[in-house]
Amino acid sequence: MGILERLDSGEVVVGDGGFLFTLEKRGFVKAGLWTPEAVVEYPSAVRQLHTEFLRAGADVLQTFTFSAAEDRMESKWEAVNAAACDLAQEVADGGAALVAGGICQTSLYKYHKDETRIKNIFRLQLGVFARKNVDFLIAEYFEHVEEAVWAVEVLREVGAPVAVTMCIGPEGDMHGVTPGECAVRLSRAGANIIGVNCRFGPWTSLQTMKLMKEGLRDAGLQAHLMVQCLGFHTPDCGKGGFVDLPEYPFGLEPRVATRWDIQKYAREAYNLGVRYIGGCCGFEPYHIRAIAEELAPERGFLPPASEKHGIWGSGLDMHTKPWIRARARREYWETLLPASGRPFCPSLSKPDA
Amino acid sequence: MGILERLDSGEVVVGDGGFLFTLEKRGFVKAGLWTPEAVVEYPSAVRQLHTEFLRAGADVLQTFTFSAAEDRMESKWEAVNAAACDLAQEVADGGAALVAGGICQTSLYKYHKDETRIKNIFRLQLGVFARKNVDFLIAEYFEHVEEAVWAVEVLREVGAPVAVTMCIGPEGDMHGVTPGECAVRLSRAGANIIGVNCRFGPWTSLQTMKLMKEGLRDAGLQAHLMVQCLGFHTPDCGKGGFVDLPEYPFGLEPRVATRWDIQKYAREAYNLGVRYIGGCCGFEPYHIRAIAEELAPERGFLPPASEKHGIWGSGLDMHTKPWIRARARREYWETLLPASGRPFCPSLSKPDA
Amino acid sequence: MGILERLDSGEVVVGDGGFLFTLEKRGFVKAGLWTPEAVVEYPSAVRQLHTEFLRAGADVLQTFTFSAAEDRMESKWEAVNAAACDLAQEVADGGAALVAGGICQTSLYKYHKDETRIKNIFRLQLGVFARKNVDFLIAEYFEHVEEAVWAVEVLREVGAPVAVTMCIGPEGDMHGVTPGECAVRLSRAGANIIGVNCRFGPWTSLQTMKLMKEGLRDAGLQAHLMVQCLGFHTPDCGKGGFVDLPEYPFGLEPRVATRWDIQKYAREAYNLGVRYIGGCCGFEPYHIRAIAEELAPERGFLPPASEKHGIWGSGLDMHTKPWIRARARREYWETLLPASGRPFCPSLSKPDA
Amino acid sequence: MGILERLDSGEVVVGDGGFLFTLEKRGFVKAGLWTPEAVVEYPSAVRQLHTEFLRAGADVLQTFTFSAAEDRMESKWEAVNAAACDLAQEVADGGAALVAGGICQTSLYKYHKDETRIKNIFRLQLGVFARKNVDFLIAEYFEHVEEAVWAVEVLREVGAPVAVTMCIGPEGDMHGVTPGECAVRLSRAGANIIGVNCRFGPWTSLQTMKLMKEGLRDAGLQAHLMVQCLGFHTPDCGKGGFVDLPEYPFGLEPRVATRWDIQKYAREAYNLGVRYIGGCCGFEPYHIRAIAEELAPERGFLPPASEKHGIWGSGLDMHTKPWIRARARREYWETLLPASGRPFCPSLSKPDA
Repeated sequence: MGILERLDSGEVVVGDGGFLFTLEKRGFVKAGLWTPEAVVEYPSAVRQLHTEFLRAGADVLQTFTFSAAEDRMESKWEAVNAAACDLAQEVADGGAALVAGGICQTSLYKYHKDETRIKNIFRLQLGVFARKNVDFLIAEYFEHVEEAVWAVEVLREVGAPVAVTMCIGPEGDMHGVTPGECAVRLSRAGANIIGVNCRFGPWTSLQTMKLMKEGLRDAGLQAHLMVQCLGFHTPDCGKGGFVDLPEYPFGLEPRVATRWDIQKYAREAYNLGVRYIGGCCGFEPYHIRAIAEELAPERGFLPPASEKHGIWGSGLDMHTKPWIRARARREYWETLLPASGRPFCPSLSKPDA
Repeated sequence: MGILERLDSGEVVVGDGGFLFTLEKRGFVKAGLWTPEAVVEYPSAVRQLHTEFLRAGADVLQTFTFSAAEDRMESKWEAVNAAACDLAQEVADGGAALVAGGICQTSLYKYHKDETRIKNIFRLQLGVFARKNVDFLIAEYFEHVEEAVWAVEVLREVGAPVAVTMCIGPEGDMHGVTPGECAVRLSRAGANIIGVNCRFGPWTSLQTMKLMKEGLRDAGLQAHLMVQCLGFHTPDCGKGGFVDLPEYPFGLEPRVATRWDIQKYAREAYNLGVRYIGGCCGFEPYHIRAIAEELAPERGFLPPASEKHGIWGSGLDMHTKPWIRARARREYWETLLPASGRPFCPSLSKPDA
Repeated sequence: MGILERLDSGEVVVGDGGFLFTLEKRGFVKAGLWTPEAVVEYPSAVRQLHTEFLRAGADVLQTFTFSAAEDRMESKWEAVNAAACDLAQEVADGGAALVAGGICQTSLYKYHKDETRIKNIFRLQLGVFARKNVDFLIAEYFEHVEEAVWAVEVLREVGAPVAVTMCIGPEGDMHGVTPGECAVRLSRAGANIIGVNCRFGPWTSLQTMKLMKEGLRDAGLQAHLMVQCLGFHTPDCGKGGFVDLPEYPFGLEPRVATRWDIQKYAREAYNLGVRYIGGCCGFEPYHIRAIAEELAPERGFLPPASEKHGIWGSGLDMHTKPWIRARARREYWETLLPASGRPFCPSLSKPDA
Repeated sequence: MGILERLDSGEVVVGDGGFLFTLEKRGFVKAGLWTPEAVVEYPSAVRQLHTEFLRAGADVLQTFTFSAAEDRMESKWEAVNAAACDLAQEVADGGAALVAGGICQTSLYKYHKDETRIKNIFRLQLGVFARKNVDFLIAEYFEHVEEAVWAVEVLREVGAPVAVTMCIGPEGDMHGVTPGECAVRLSRAGANIIGVNCRFGPWTSLQTMKLMKEGLRDAGLQAHLMVQCLGFHTPDCGKGGFVDLPEYPFGLEPRVATRWDIQKYAREAYNLGVRYIGGCCGFEPYHIRAIAEELAPERGFLPPASEKHGIWGSGLDMHTKPWIRARARREYWETLLPASGRPFCPSLSKPDA
């Protein structure tokens, strides 16, 4: 079944996690540039991460093509996009996963709102995706709804389903368009699946999703909802999201979500009516597994990686120390307030901008 | 050059990081059991992690044989040890790394201090390592010095250099033997390299190393020093280390060290006279890279993975936002006190035992 | 000059601080009941506190008559109100301070919205204030605007100026009336001075004041603005304010504002256009002095208690330890982020309701 | 009964709290100088505070003569000492309290260890105390045991009982003399009551007391033990105590102990064998009441101020909101971890020296 058939039938679709941050920590992506040449330089590292997300329960493998457009990668862009498609396809074939071709905002929009040129950049990537026959398309990480609309308009040209996610919070896009209005414009542009990715942590992203949902409802529109938030807690973000936090990008460790945080996020997203639930920067394979485990009752199955995971800590029940055995239960982990181990650090910081 | 030649000549030896926690997050190791059957079940995942540590600058690849002894893995133990040696060897051949065969404390000692039986368990693993011709041996994660001494005595039987690390803090072993006295006994048992691994974070582990160093000095003994601490901050640990913290093992995220913490740790370890510097649970490839980068002036070279890392955040100097460019400098990251993003959580917790 | 003449001429009026919490800590008021029988039982303790606030720079001494109404104090109410007036008047005569008679919400409103009975309760207190000839009247600590309007209507009966403050936050009164609308209704009821007191910390209270100001402006109304916030930081309050925080009332110590926090509050209140600036629960004499010192340039004089206070820590400049002398400057105290000394405590808590 | 009769018979003696910090907040003492001219300038403010401590349960009223020696107050010293004695005596007469004349370390010792001159300074103050016929003597706030010994030697000259407290932590005096050795020297010099005051919070001070107790025991000496710690939490202090913390003296608010912290402190002090239990800087009347309430079972009575205090929060049991009524119980307050309300502040800080 295609992505829309799955969503139309009420299925939960589990997305995958973040490639840039995860592969940066593994040594294959350079922070700052954040471009995905690893697909050609270190294909086995990329293949391994796809494999891990698949094993963790992802129903969709997204091509690792973030920023892999002509404006940022010059002549390399085409080989990178092609290789990324091949890698995702190769791994997806080993499961029942769909492959989604992904594009993101250009580096041009903020300087020149040149619709023709920007659409052409999108169209080049789309050409590769079409040739490689990906299952559907995702336009993600847009901070201006106008550019996101252009992306949707281009992606619709080949007939595959189109998902679109913005990297905005409850305050809306960089021009002040509210999340509700963003969702409405994206729906009217023809997007089938609408939501947010990146830049904000779980709770903030769900607030934004609530506003998008209400905007669509008030406009009498229907769309599938999708959320792929950060794996970091960012209650102190401003409008610009986590990039403005002083810890970005090399001091975010204390903010990493636990698997239990992500189970709660998955449940709340589900309760809100979101059915495409995944992650973005900071989401590692075990976070995706946490989504799949939390929603296993609804999905009817556990992901392969649960073979190596006792639900709600149950794997600790054989421990020799009784006080550690006492942690082998849901209530323990659900209510734990984990310490930072950093008594000289604050709990929140002020965004730089 | 062998490990002792390197250390004797004053070289810094960079160890590798943690397999159990890293592969648990990737979906290939089960917490609670913490046994390494992944080497036979998912060899490509293990190979990938070896590759990443090598690329991050590790001079030693340790066989993933933690707990892979007869007492914990029954008949599987032999195949696991053999496969682990092959995997480490295969990856090491792609660099200039040494392979170390690793054993750890048994599950028996705390119930029956049966020297013959326990030594036999060690001897079985040693047989595989000898057959596979590893470069040297590491006995690690001992909480009782008596058992560690037995391990050293067995490992010495084949003539390869022997390193030994205990999982103790400044309060000493579980019977109250001080770190200094532990070091003395291990040295007298014939260990060439002595130190600590696991259970305590960077600063606590360095305190323990200081006590070991002083113990050896006071006894007029010479030994190379080695530290492979946790990648978690644990200032609130009791004698039992991080396993007693309420966050163990599924809520430790806020305690994960940043790369800058690890650079500081590497420098302090070096200043203390420790020359074998690596990590244990919680150490991911980028943490090992941080050791190699911090000590690059002493070593004379950067690790391969630095190709994807701007030293001290310098990769941010091309960022479009000026306030993020302002982070492309050493002083910024050295003095940053990262927030947890968790205002309802404390900074320290009380060990359960 | 009367209160209105002062405010009309653009003067800053410094209010006094909190009697209930301060005298509870001194041993003369019982938490829970929070009634002011101390005025008859321990008049010297009450006189002392009035003296301290006067010395700290208060331009107004408020009678300690909070809750001293018939519904809460039965037959004692009259003697308490009379004694409270005498005490305030006696101390005020030693300075240039005005005396304000104060009433607050009844215990009846939430059960029976019986306007006649409630107004009669107010009228009884007013009778004493009129007889004692107080300079003006304050109706404070109202959580429902309707009851506050009744209070204003009664207080206007004797011709003295009337100030009114609600104990609400930005979410408005307990029936959901916004701060802006509350201010409008109070102004239309004839209040001369309008604002908030208690229940929320400095920053939250200033947000509420901003909304009140905007409400009045949008309605084309003019009123003097007044703020008497808590001396506790309460960013985690819900609609009900600090009484719902788990720390209320016996664990609020870590939230106590520093003198520097209060200088910042005074400045921001001033910048917002508020000219009657004081405090409520948690405000001790040195907090009132901080208001008077911050606004000394505008007022043209320092309060008497500044005799015992070096501005911005300047009294430390003679210290024998150089690192303490280094604290004798404004920038030091303005930027200090004071630690709690409580590493096992969180920085925020969740309100119980 | 005199102080020694009380202690000899096993009674608990409750000390009083801090005058300098409390009166600084009330506007009568200047931080930096920390001298007590308030006894002549504002006698009613000093009398009021004595009254509050007496009412809170203090068995001893200490003359407010800290630093009131010739080296710091020049010719004023004598009038101040005399007035301080009169004030304490006047209030003590209203209860069953003893009056203790207090001296502290000189400003000279650290520059010139001139025993004759320093002893003469002590002797001058002693002359006033003898003339005013105080009940016993306290030499307090010594950071060098040698000077404390000189003080004891002088105070013994008039035959009244002598207590002595040092302002040291577990690391000992400024010359590195351990707490145990300090206690031994003070006992041998003739002190009847020995302990610590000021500079460190409750838990640190009790650790120091434990070391003093062990030192005395190991030397076969007997002495009554006394503790008068800070009312601030200072787990992050270095050897120099709270004066070195960045928050000293104007940003210590978040560290103020709750009444429940002090009840725990009183109980632990008692369990350690300390029988003279009071407070120093940061101890307000309600903290002293907390000592008296915690030890009411041992003492057989509650202090007068408990008239205005429901034990363990019981005064909340009549509250109209059920969730606040739920706080009217011991377990609630004993286990509460109070939030700081300051998410941008750390929980610990690093001493400046």
